[in-house]
Amino acid sequence: MIKDDCIFCKIIKGDIPSRTLYEDDSYKVIMDIEPADKGHALILPKDHYADLYEIPEDLAAGATKLAKKLITEFTTKLNCDGYNILQNNKEAAGQTVSHYHVHLIPRYADGQKLFRYEHLKLTSEEMDEIEGKIKK
Amino acid sequence: MIKDDCIFCKIIKGDIPSRTLYEDDSYKVIMDIEPADKGHALILPKDHYADLYEIPEDLAAGATKLAKKLITEFTTKLNCDGYNILQNNKEAAGQTVSHYHVHLIPRYADGQKLFRYEHLKLTSEEMDEIEGKIKK
Repeated sequence: MIKDDCIFCKIIKGDIPSRTLYEDDSYKVIMDIEPADKGHALILPKDHYADLYEIPEDLAAGATKLAKKLITEFTTKLNCDGYNILQNNKEAAGQTVSHYHVHLIPRYADGQKLFRYEHLKLTSEEMDEIEGKIKK
Repeated sequence: MIKDDCIFCKIIKGDIPSRTLYEDDSYKVIMDIEPADKGHALILPKDHYADLYEIPEDLAAGATKLAKKLITEFTTKLNCDGYNILQNNKEAAGQTVSHYHVHLIPRYADGQKLFRYEHLKLTSEEMDEIEGKIKK
């Protein structure tokens, strides 16, 4: 179930390139191009639903199970010290793409602890290095 | 499964009072006493697990299903315009109580859209009013 004008649907189809970290029949996990911290990833259900209000509960619950699995792996791989799991619904809550997605944001003991949406300016090489650490 | 020195376990047992919005065999949902926005609630699994690394996947997935159900109801009741769903893991990610919990943070069209952890100073009366709107 694809929505033609949705940028995440285009990423899922492969029409727009992405740094894909994980993929199965139901989900694609990509790196956020404006990371809040080093290793910031997004879980995208392949079927298009705008938000938590619209998505079937089992598909949302499956994304949570996948988040648990991935952060366990990524914490070791990134050597980070914790994770924010964030899922925004509607523009008023800062949702910028109306396709359900779950942010996996690694945090580091020497970094900022509270969630503020300040984007790092990473070079392509720095992005490659992080991708290499956590890509399946 | 209770941890004696855990403040959320004490709230779940009723040893510390809370504004309880919802309760079933597995979860208790309370109002956050330091709300990020009006109506900020917390889903607490009754069994003690520190974080997403530790909690059984089915219990975490059940909290997501409950979040979907609750924000659907609360959005109508609060007349809010969206929701942040946030779940922090470990001190480095801003987790302040080491008992798995999911933040349900309503957002309003005239408010701030991005997630910053600024607490509102609400009076007890204002808290009562909000509680009255969304309490089961």
